[in-house]
Amino acid sequence: MDRRNFTKLSAAASLTGLVTRTAAGEETPRANTAAAASKESAEQQHLDAMQRYAALTEGPKLTIGMLVYPGMFLQDLVGPLAVFESLMNRDIHLLWKTLDPVRNEKAEHTTFIPVPPTTRFADCPDHLDVLFVPGGVPGTLTMMEDAEVLQFLADRGRQARFVTSVCTGSLILGAAGLLKGYRATSHWVTLDVLSELGAIPTKGRIVVDRNRITGGGVTAGIDFGLQLAALLRNDTYAQAVQLYLEYDPAPPFDAGSPEKAPPIVNQFLSEMFAELKDAATQAAKRASKRLS
Amino acid sequence: MDRRNFTKLSAAASLTGLVTRTAAGEETPRANTAAAASKESAEQQHLDAMQRYAALTEGPKLTIGMLVYPGMFLQDLVGPLAVFESLMNRDIHLLWKTLDPVRNEKAEHTTFIPVPPTTRFADCPDHLDVLFVPGGVPGTLTMMEDAEVLQFLADRGRQARFVTSVCTGSLILGAAGLLKGYRATSHWVTLDVLSELGAIPTKGRIVVDRNRITGGGVTAGIDFGLQLAALLRNDTYAQAVQLYLEYDPAPPFDAGSPEKAPPIVNQFLSEMFAELKDAATQAAKRASKRLS
Repeated sequence: MDRRNFTKLSAAASLTGLVTRTAAGEETPRANTAAAASKESAEQQHLDAMQRYAALTEGPKLTIGMLVYPGMFLQDLVGPLAVFESLMNRDIHLLWKTLDPVRNEKAEHTTFIPVPPTTRFADCPDHLDVLFVPGGVPGTLTMMEDAEVLQFLADRGRQARFVTSVCTGSLILGAAGLLKGYRATSHWVTLDVLSELGAIPTKGRIVVDRNRITGGGVTAGIDFGLQLAALLRNDTYAQAVQLYLEYDPAPPFDAGSPEKAPPIVNQFLSEMFAELKDAATQAAKRASKRLS
Repeated sequence: MDRRNFTKLSAAASLTGLVTRTAAGEETPRANTAAAASKESAEQQHLDAMQRYAALTEGPKLTIGMLVYPGMFLQDLVGPLAVFESLMNRDIHLLWKTLDPVRNEKAEHTTFIPVPPTTRFADCPDHLDVLFVPGGVPGTLTMMEDAEVLQFLADRGRQARFVTSVCTGSLILGAAGLLKGYRATSHWVTLDVLSELGAIPTKGRIVVDRNRITGGGVTAGIDFGLQLAALLRNDTYAQAVQLYLEYDPAPPFDAGSPEKAPPIVNQFLSEMFAELKDAATQAAKRASKRLS
């Protein structure tokens, strides 16, 4: 949402308290005709609504940290980001070791929009309201074995209010030791791999276990973001963001999960990702050994 | 999807034809036991599947041009991009006047990931299979009055196989004269504005009228992308992309359209966007005058 408009509304809503008090006070001339009463009622309704908007959109400052890394999947980041950006009074940090833009390792084939981090690990606030990790191949496999990344995530994850991921990002959280004993989800291809990391693989678009919130593959980031917005603020605000993003999904096909997709589609993707699943399992086994 | 894996599969599938022919030939020893027959059958099933993948993923080279511009909404671009990237044998051009990264005009508040164009208007192929325009505020209003952009879109739009948009991008197509007499959709806030541009405003997540394909607000880009993938290739391939992106939406709330959202949410957003709608209407009136 446009912050200028939000701010204007909040300012109007703040004003509203004053105006409402004045309207109820002695100095306001009484309306004597039905038309005036109707107009006053409409105005009152409007003012009441504005007041509700303020209650809706205000809240304590949020500090949101999103890991970015080479070889991540851009949609995994941008879906939740579209939601978080729509919240008022928040700082969003795109976190990486350095401020050099992170590039997909296969830039010519997949995501070719480099993402400039905003904040180095060293400058990241200690306490985050949200620590978020996107998924993506081949980056996830690299991150699962990157000591600097894992140490950073373990440290901020211990202190964060919500520790979260989308897609294969949960494997990175797991490799940092942040999912031991927690129910969690992942992209359907890598869901089982979570058990190697001490997590309890749990099917679901969004899986919430205490302060761990994990989303399914790629596009689950939008559902995930809205769920988190509701937890960070309130249901009505999350619904306003949903309407703003016009998130009224109507996929032209019903093939978004292995249970729903035709056999040929399942077989195609399972074979395509067999090697990845094996590599992720091996990386998880090594991570588990380091963690124990 | 990972092109290396796709290529490997395609190679395997191409090989398959050979192997299958060999298996049917005289030189292949006949299986004499039930176990061997079962194994042979499983192998045959696998090989048949691989062959089907080739039919699935191959197709003529696609040339996809996506306008990028300052003040666009990143999710509007990235949703369709996630789908287009998953197609084999395609070139994707991110198009702008220059190769300078386009930045959101309010970079500190909204999208702060600058997008580097890949191709200048001057270097864009004449014939595009897809011409795509994302939406976003305030960029849409600026683009609706940018003669260089409108002239480029009008030119390539005349020759393109599909002329497409998501969200307020349809207002830009309309300002370029590309939607006259076509049914089209837009973000719900600006849907009515299309009539000022000679289009027929039509509610819908994806509206297809001849070769014009327009999507609704922001997140409709994923549905739109899958629909277009089916038209460019085939339904099964589009379903494979859907499963890859795990697009099995399950929003935590059902508030993604004005018809479904609670009154307070509708009122909040309608008021927030009243000024934008008015500005878009004025820009559309001016564009209409120029076009007539």
